[in-house]
Amino acid sequence: MKNQYAKMQTPPKIGITLGDPAGIGPEIILKAYQKRLPRHISIVYGDVLLMDVANALSFPKKIHTIRDVTASPIESRDGINLLPVTALRPSSFIVGHPNATTGRAAGRYIEKAIHAALHHEIDAVVTCPIQKHAFHKGGYSYPGHTEMFATLTDAQRYTMMMLSHPLKVSLVTLHLPLQNVATALTAARIQEVIELTLTALKRWFGISTPRIGVLGLNPHAGEEGDLGWEEDRLIRPVIQSFQKRGDTVEGPLPPDTAFLKEKLKRYDAYIAMYHDQGLIPFKLMAFHTGVNCTLGLPFPRLSVDHGTGLDIAGKGIADPSSLRSAIRWAVAFSKGKRM
Amino acid sequence: MKNQYAKMQTPPKIGITLGDPAGIGPEIILKAYQKRLPRHISIVYGDVLLMDVANALSFPKKIHTIRDVTASPIESRDGINLLPVTALRPSSFIVGHPNATTGRAAGRYIEKAIHAALHHEIDAVVTCPIQKHAFHKGGYSYPGHTEMFATLTDAQRYTMMMLSHPLKVSLVTLHLPLQNVATALTAARIQEVIELTLTALKRWFGISTPRIGVLGLNPHAGEEGDLGWEEDRLIRPVIQSFQKRGDTVEGPLPPDTAFLKEKLKRYDAYIAMYHDQGLIPFKLMAFHTGVNCTLGLPFPRLSVDHGTGLDIAGKGIADPSSLRSAIRWAVAFSKGKRM
Repeated sequence: MKNQYAKMQTPPKIGITLGDPAGIGPEIILKAYQKRLPRHISIVYGDVLLMDVANALSFPKKIHTIRDVTASPIESRDGINLLPVTALRPSSFIVGHPNATTGRAAGRYIEKAIHAALHHEIDAVVTCPIQKHAFHKGGYSYPGHTEMFATLTDAQRYTMMMLSHPLKVSLVTLHLPLQNVATALTAARIQEVIELTLTALKRWFGISTPRIGVLGLNPHAGEEGDLGWEEDRLIRPVIQSFQKRGDTVEGPLPPDTAFLKEKLKRYDAYIAMYHDQGLIPFKLMAFHTGVNCTLGLPFPRLSVDHGTGLDIAGKGIADPSSLRSAIRWAVAFSKGKRM
Repeated sequence: MKNQYAKMQTPPKIGITLGDPAGIGPEIILKAYQKRLPRHISIVYGDVLLMDVANALSFPKKIHTIRDVTASPIESRDGINLLPVTALRPSSFIVGHPNATTGRAAGRYIEKAIHAALHHEIDAVVTCPIQKHAFHKGGYSYPGHTEMFATLTDAQRYTMMMLSHPLKVSLVTLHLPLQNVATALTAARIQEVIELTLTALKRWFGISTPRIGVLGLNPHAGEEGDLGWEEDRLIRPVIQSFQKRGDTVEGPLPPDTAFLKEKLKRYDAYIAMYHDQGLIPFKLMAFHTGVNCTLGLPFPRLSVDHGTGLDIAGKGIADPSSLRSAIRWAVAFSKGKRM
């Protein structure tokens, strides 16, 4: 991989959206670049207020303001390229208190980054957290980041994959009340998520023959039908269809033992049927370095796995670990994409 | 606690059921007593076939056959007391292959132990695994151990608590298809399980003011109603009713962050709404030493958290760690009970 990379004319360009300016986004971006990261060019979609935060934090590197991505950006070892998107003034909000103006600005950063990625001006997008209520008040009706990316890139099939070094897990159903999970489960959707995961593992992770573990829905994976029928009638037939074409897709695995050490080594990624089935073990194994990735978009999109941290915003104590992981994955994925 | 214990005239009597004789029960019992355990008197409800297994394993201590519990049993440091329940012969089954005869014997051991505990002949019961199909063929229709204990002790309110040193978690719903979880959830049942847990923590664990964390049902604990209504209408009102009477009961906690280190320290036990919500984190944190405890019975009942191990039965490689933990908890609970 290093050789391939050395041949590239320019390092990958990673777009980073500032998130809600009243949250910890500006702080974690600056902190992320204080320590070394793999070679790339960062483009922050944000506003000049980043300069004020940089002064407050005594940010030791350059912040290079650019009008567009092609205009000689600096490399990550030297500092950050800032692409101001709106003319947001620090006086229009209080840190820790998002409002319609900050919510609208956060949405504009995302739009601009998606546009750039669709036009191949950047290789991947990393997003800092938005605050949903402010985002909605600012005029955006998307339930969250993921749906906004899917809509604006016209992605018909997409899902969320949680990424960490010990564990990668894709979700069949996302943010649904538990009551609606079983009825939302279809063979077509399970198949789609397995496909998306296989594609991502091959294309972005460079794994030529990925091994996937599929969880059951019910306790003990249905215990031969005694504790639920979905394993036998929905999940197992889909798994078998992948096996027939030669893919290493196994399951349905009893959920409570699926994540034990001996199994973890066996699979490159898991498929979870619902949010907490995947997120409970994920957060236990990878809280501070966990990253959320959207599969099914024309480019890699990664996100920190925490919120706007309104209670600590402006205090200088936010932890950039998840953002640093997201940037690292974005750089790795950009290389995979070009190979 | 040690002083109280020293005053006791006799060490606690722990009944241990052999489980399905074709499984790993006999082997793990003998292995459990090869290393030191806290002082107690063990009564194995089983059959003389235990002698054969002891010979095969060169068990270094005594196996003292008794007709009833009052007849001068030996202490755990010297060996095991065996109370033969049926006249099962080794020739009536093949190790690793439970049948109606072994299933029936396993049921009889349990009946006998429950009878003894109800008559205060023993202080606690520890169960080795049964094989459900053989148990049913043997004439028992209970779905499992827990229901058998509840029925035979006439317990109206009971539940399952998973025990380990890092994590204790009680379940509101037990072995249910995921589809039926939300509809099975009632305020009365949530209240009952919190009550059972508070009582157990006080009486058996000797914690005078227990702190309990209650999980939400839905992702992000319902996110203020956006992802489910059960938190606001069922779970929170029950929590508030405990808080009003002065108990430390907190929640509903977002399930995916509830088990992180800083939270674990905060609670003596958790209440999970469904099987895998509690069992996924439990098995991750405590696989080999995890123990299953039934709350709501007139005496402590503990069980190993693994099955009959039919694939490894008779090979001498079964791990007694979970049984050793169960015996340790049983001894500790028996002390609590007498205080």
